[in-house]
Amino acid sequence: MKPSLDALLPDADRIAADLRELERFVQPDAPGWSREVFSDPYRAERDWVAGRMRAAHLETNIDAAGNVIGRLVGTQPGPPLVTGSHTDTVHGGGRFDGVVGVLGAIEAARRLRETGTRLNHDLLIIDFLGEEANAFGASCIGSRAISGLLETVHLSRKDPTGMTLGDTMKNFGTDPNGALALARRPGSMHAYVELHIEQGPMLEERGTSIGVVTAIAGIERLLATFTGRADHAGTRPMSQRQDALVAAAEAVLTVERVGCGAPVHGVTTTGRLETSPGAYNVIPDYARIWAEMRSVDVSWLTGAKQRLAEQIAAAAAERGVHTMIEWLNDQSPVHTTRSVQDTIGLAADALGIPWVPMPSGAGHDAAHMAHLGPMGMIFIPSSDGRSHCPEEWTDLEHIVTGIHTLAVTLVKLDQMETVQTDSVQSVPRS
Amino acid sequence: MKPSLDALLPDADRIAADLRELERFVQPDAPGWSREVFSDPYRAERDWVAGRMRAAHLETNIDAAGNVIGRLVGTQPGPPLVTGSHTDTVHGGGRFDGVVGVLGAIEAARRLRETGTRLNHDLLIIDFLGEEANAFGASCIGSRAISGLLETVHLSRKDPTGMTLGDTMKNFGTDPNGALALARRPGSMHAYVELHIEQGPMLEERGTSIGVVTAIAGIERLLATFTGRADHAGTRPMSQRQDALVAAAEAVLTVERVGCGAPVHGVTTTGRLETSPGAYNVIPDYARIWAEMRSVDVSWLTGAKQRLAEQIAAAAAERGVHTMIEWLNDQSPVHTTRSVQDTIGLAADALGIPWVPMPSGAGHDAAHMAHLGPMGMIFIPSSDGRSHCPEEWTDLEHIVTGIHTLAVTLVKLDQMETVQTDSVQSVPRS
Repeated sequence: MKPSLDALLPDADRIAADLRELERFVQPDAPGWSREVFSDPYRAERDWVAGRMRAAHLETNIDAAGNVIGRLVGTQPGPPLVTGSHTDTVHGGGRFDGVVGVLGAIEAARRLRETGTRLNHDLLIIDFLGEEANAFGASCIGSRAISGLLETVHLSRKDPTGMTLGDTMKNFGTDPNGALALARRPGSMHAYVELHIEQGPMLEERGTSIGVVTAIAGIERLLATFTGRADHAGTRPMSQRQDALVAAAEAVLTVERVGCGAPVHGVTTTGRLETSPGAYNVIPDYARIWAEMRSVDVSWLTGAKQRLAEQIAAAAAERGVHTMIEWLNDQSPVHTTRSVQDTIGLAADALGIPWVPMPSGAGHDAAHMAHLGPMGMIFIPSSDGRSHCPEEWTDLEHIVTGIHTLAVTLVKLDQMETVQTDSVQSVPRS
Repeated sequence: MKPSLDALLPDADRIAADLRELERFVQPDAPGWSREVFSDPYRAERDWVAGRMRAAHLETNIDAAGNVIGRLVGTQPGPPLVTGSHTDTVHGGGRFDGVVGVLGAIEAARRLRETGTRLNHDLLIIDFLGEEANAFGASCIGSRAISGLLETVHLSRKDPTGMTLGDTMKNFGTDPNGALALARRPGSMHAYVELHIEQGPMLEERGTSIGVVTAIAGIERLLATFTGRADHAGTRPMSQRQDALVAAAEAVLTVERVGCGAPVHGVTTTGRLETSPGAYNVIPDYARIWAEMRSVDVSWLTGAKQRLAEQIAAAAAERGVHTMIEWLNDQSPVHTTRSVQDTIGLAADALGIPWVPMPSGAGHDAAHMAHLGPMGMIFIPSSDGRSHCPEEWTDLEHIVTGIHTLAVTLVKLDQMETVQTDSVQSVPRS
């Protein structure tokens, strides 16, 4: 039967109740709404999510990588349509990042069933394990596993206590070797679409409910170590100092300057600085900064990366401070698939919802799932653009609009025999 | 009898052996030659110092503040002549800072006795407790106690674990209430002279063995706290950030700029910076810096202090970052007594040792002892100006020259009926 698209409007009270139930799973000893990967509340919350999927009549299982997967069986064989997101948070994070995409997908599936809307393709709803950056420096564990981008080198990464990611996954009850074997074949997915909060201020500023994501920013991470000379802070003349902290402070401002000179959606941030020995009366001989650059423009990223390293090292050298710079490529820029963008736009148009195309500054599971087939993302507004903080907020009306757009997009994608991939689509391995 | 000044030349082998023995008392779990106040090696080392004093035929006791005091009895009653320094170190410190003044004074006393040189005045040699800045923010504990500058407010200061200085002193075996009662009366001391390494590069650069200290720098300490806003580092545009770490980095450069614009011997240092939450992908909403300014020029200090606070707060405000600035006056500038300066110069002249007048950028027990009577200091060169680091070094020949100058200065001060105090001498309470 031909479904009525308006009838797929989600049940606002039900989604609000789900959000309230899920937010109870928090770490009691951490700030905000922390539910970090591998924490006890995260483990408990995943059982709850699996329960919500079963209650929605989805065939539910947890795979070797710890992904919680619900299947709405389609009428025909063939590659599945996939949606989902994550329910882990950063330390001190909020209640909407990722969560809206998982609970929203479950609600969309409920509405499909309740309206008697049968899809041709199987629909998989995935709550991916550990999307946020963690102490092992490995984000998007679950979506990397499914898309074949999780490697043994990730599993052997250690947290500051010396524990490997692999052992931590084992202790959490997942099967790291099995996770490596989960990789699906490129082309084995009809399409992927993810609903997510914007985490920035653009939609709110424009007064628009829906963002159609055009690209997901690449992330280059910098670890710069400065080695100077410890001297007595009272007796060493200013002109003879080799102050590692002053060199690091200059680097923080250089990182900022490079970002301020970036094209739209190029951003740079120093998230952390450490220095020692840390006494009032000793000139610091050691400092280290952790910084990152993000852009959807790979050529800008490449140039800015080189400029940044050169400027930091040159300024430090003028102070007699030695610099060691290490780069970690976390994620290359990924363009969403043009035909999926178009389908989301058509879905919003069909519902009379205004939308704008926009890039994503944040990384997402979608960037990895793009390895398997056509991919797109739907953004909804974040109040005041806040995210990765306890104040993170999205109004229920935006969540409802987002889920409705997701449901209609899924129906429209399902109706396409194949979803056209872009002729030039760059999905570099990260 | 009239002593032969040349005969007071110290025994280089004996002083070298003392230095070697003392340097064995170090904290095994700390870098360099750490012997921090209240550590076990510091406790053991103080017994060893007392033993060396007794072996030098000094009447030795340890007072309520934990000062180790040796007395060489003079031929006449009256206020004592005093010398000494300290044997605690900073974390990761060296082997000469303070130590040379204590072991040098003991060697001077030995040479006085061995040459049959009787002094009119009692000579007190004091190894002052805890001169270096500690976790309680209270330097010069022992000399503050004797000079009446230790107050109950110091004893109630807490270290980061919440332990008070008073309780820590009790656990160490000293008597904090007794320490408060140690205060001597201003005028109750004939004169004070302290031998110390320069801890800076000036004497070595000039090729001069002896520095006659003209003033000890004042120290103003700054704690600046920056409060911004945590946001997602990938999605918050550069123009909308309230980045506490960038504001703190700018403050570090402002602190340096103020110092570089200072008159001779004005120095400024940021010793420590902390920021949170400390993740790659979150804009820091909190940062804190610990900085200090030093100068012998109180009017420059006062003006620079105000300029610094204004510039830091104004720059942060432009970024939407709130600043809270606290000042802690650690030590006001103290001028040494002109007549003691002259006596040191005459002593060096009598031995044919070249000397230069110079200020001290470092704080010393002498700054507190100045509260009780005429005060002066003798500096000897530090190799490459290094201090408060394991590389700290002073050649034995300089140590011998310094002790010889100290011994002759003591003899000359002893021969003066009274040591003239300056008509305008500012010794503000700190």
